[in-house]
Amino acid sequence: MDVVVNAAMSVDGKLSTRRREQLKISGSDDFERVDRVRTAVDGVVVGIGTVMADDPHLILDDPAGRHERREAGRPPSPARIVVDSRGRTPPDGRICDDAAATYVLVSEAAPADNRTALRKAGATVLVAGETRVDLEAAIAKLESQGLESLLIEGGGEIIYSAFEADVVDELSVFVGSLVIGGRQAPTLADGEGFLEAFPQLSLRAVERLDDGVVLQYTVSKNETSPSN
Amino acid sequence: MDVVVNAAMSVDGKLSTRRREQLKISGSDDFERVDRVRTAVDGVVVGIGTVMADDPHLILDDPAGRHERREAGRPPSPARIVVDSRGRTPPDGRICDDAAATYVLVSEAAPADNRTALRKAGATVLVAGETRVDLEAAIAKLESQGLESLLIEGGGEIIYSAFEADVVDELSVFVGSLVIGGRQAPTLADGEGFLEAFPQLSLRAVERLDDGVVLQYTVSKNETSPSN
Repeated sequence: MDVVVNAAMSVDGKLSTRRREQLKISGSDDFERVDRVRTAVDGVVVGIGTVMADDPHLILDDPAGRHERREAGRPPSPARIVVDSRGRTPPDGRICDDAAATYVLVSEAAPADNRTALRKAGATVLVAGETRVDLEAAIAKLESQGLESLLIEGGGEIIYSAFEADVVDELSVFVGSLVIGGRQAPTLADGEGFLEAFPQLSLRAVERLDDGVVLQYTVSKNETSPSN
Repeated sequence: MDVVVNAAMSVDGKLSTRRREQLKISGSDDFERVDRVRTAVDGVVVGIGTVMADDPHLILDDPAGRHERREAGRPPSPARIVVDSRGRTPPDGRICDDAAATYVLVSEAAPADNRTALRKAGATVLVAGETRVDLEAAIAKLESQGLESLLIEGGGEIIYSAFEADVVDELSVFVGSLVIGGRQAPTLADGEGFLEAFPQLSLRAVERLDDGVVLQYTVSKNETSPSN
């Protein structure tokens, strides 16, 4: 599975304010860039925190991208995938509508009622992990569903989990020209945080875009990881 | 007063791990770049958190820079300045030794004993603000001491305070090619965080250095700020 992480952050690494209100960090050129990435992948991944905060649709809106995918015999929009250990995704949320396929990755701790409601809403529920989603196992299940590439769009908890599970191949970050600040504001990578064996990146490209800059990295997979 | 902020962070905006252990984020080329900035300024500013965590010396080590300053009739090293509302800087810390001038900026809430001990150790104690250092007033006092330019080196609390007080003219950030992660890890700008009127930056230069990239910004001063 090819896994790309993409996000827009302030120069101090924040994805939004401490109130988690959505904020326009990038501009139209970066939106176009992200549309191109979305056009290329089989699935777009977000964490349950992002679903709760933003009710995202995660559909590829760009007509050219939808056309390109149809011509290639693919669905017009990539699948939407929620990492959601307890199955709290609202079945009436925009991410569960019929504009594209929806996968909800849950743990064994997700109540059966939640799973049933999500299935009734048309989502495919995949179980991996006991109390938290085991990302590596979940990705294997997505692969067996025919998905070969994923775009992780955030938030900071799922991005951290993806680095912790050592499943990330590429990272693209739009760095907006503003300061958000805040000890409590969500950052590009939250979670517990690494204390050693920090994921090492290789800076592949630097591109000025809108009023900011896009940094593109290849991730050096941890070759000594027992999971690889 | 010209105020430059400079720091090195991970791609997710962290200055160190959640344990606040010092971490080598940049490399020798960036150290040289920072030495050139230190050579140019009259004072180097850190917050009390950084003093407590790292016991920094903040001396210009580079012989060429020291020589250049002496030739210009300036002290070989810029002054060291601690923003320290309660006067907790250890008088026997490296920042108080006689290798350069030391200023400790305190609030009126700083106990008299602390101030006396710092003065005995050779530091100049400047009082500005009731319970927290009023950065704008403190900077005016530094100006009246003959200092015309400052380099703020962190941590994230003092950097946030400087943006909040709208005293920053330039921001330089070395973005290292690693992920640190952590909800609790210190970031480039901590504090309460902005909810609106985010400091707006103008991206002046992008330069690849060591295995990372330096982003240099000019700060658009908030013209409607009542303090200007």
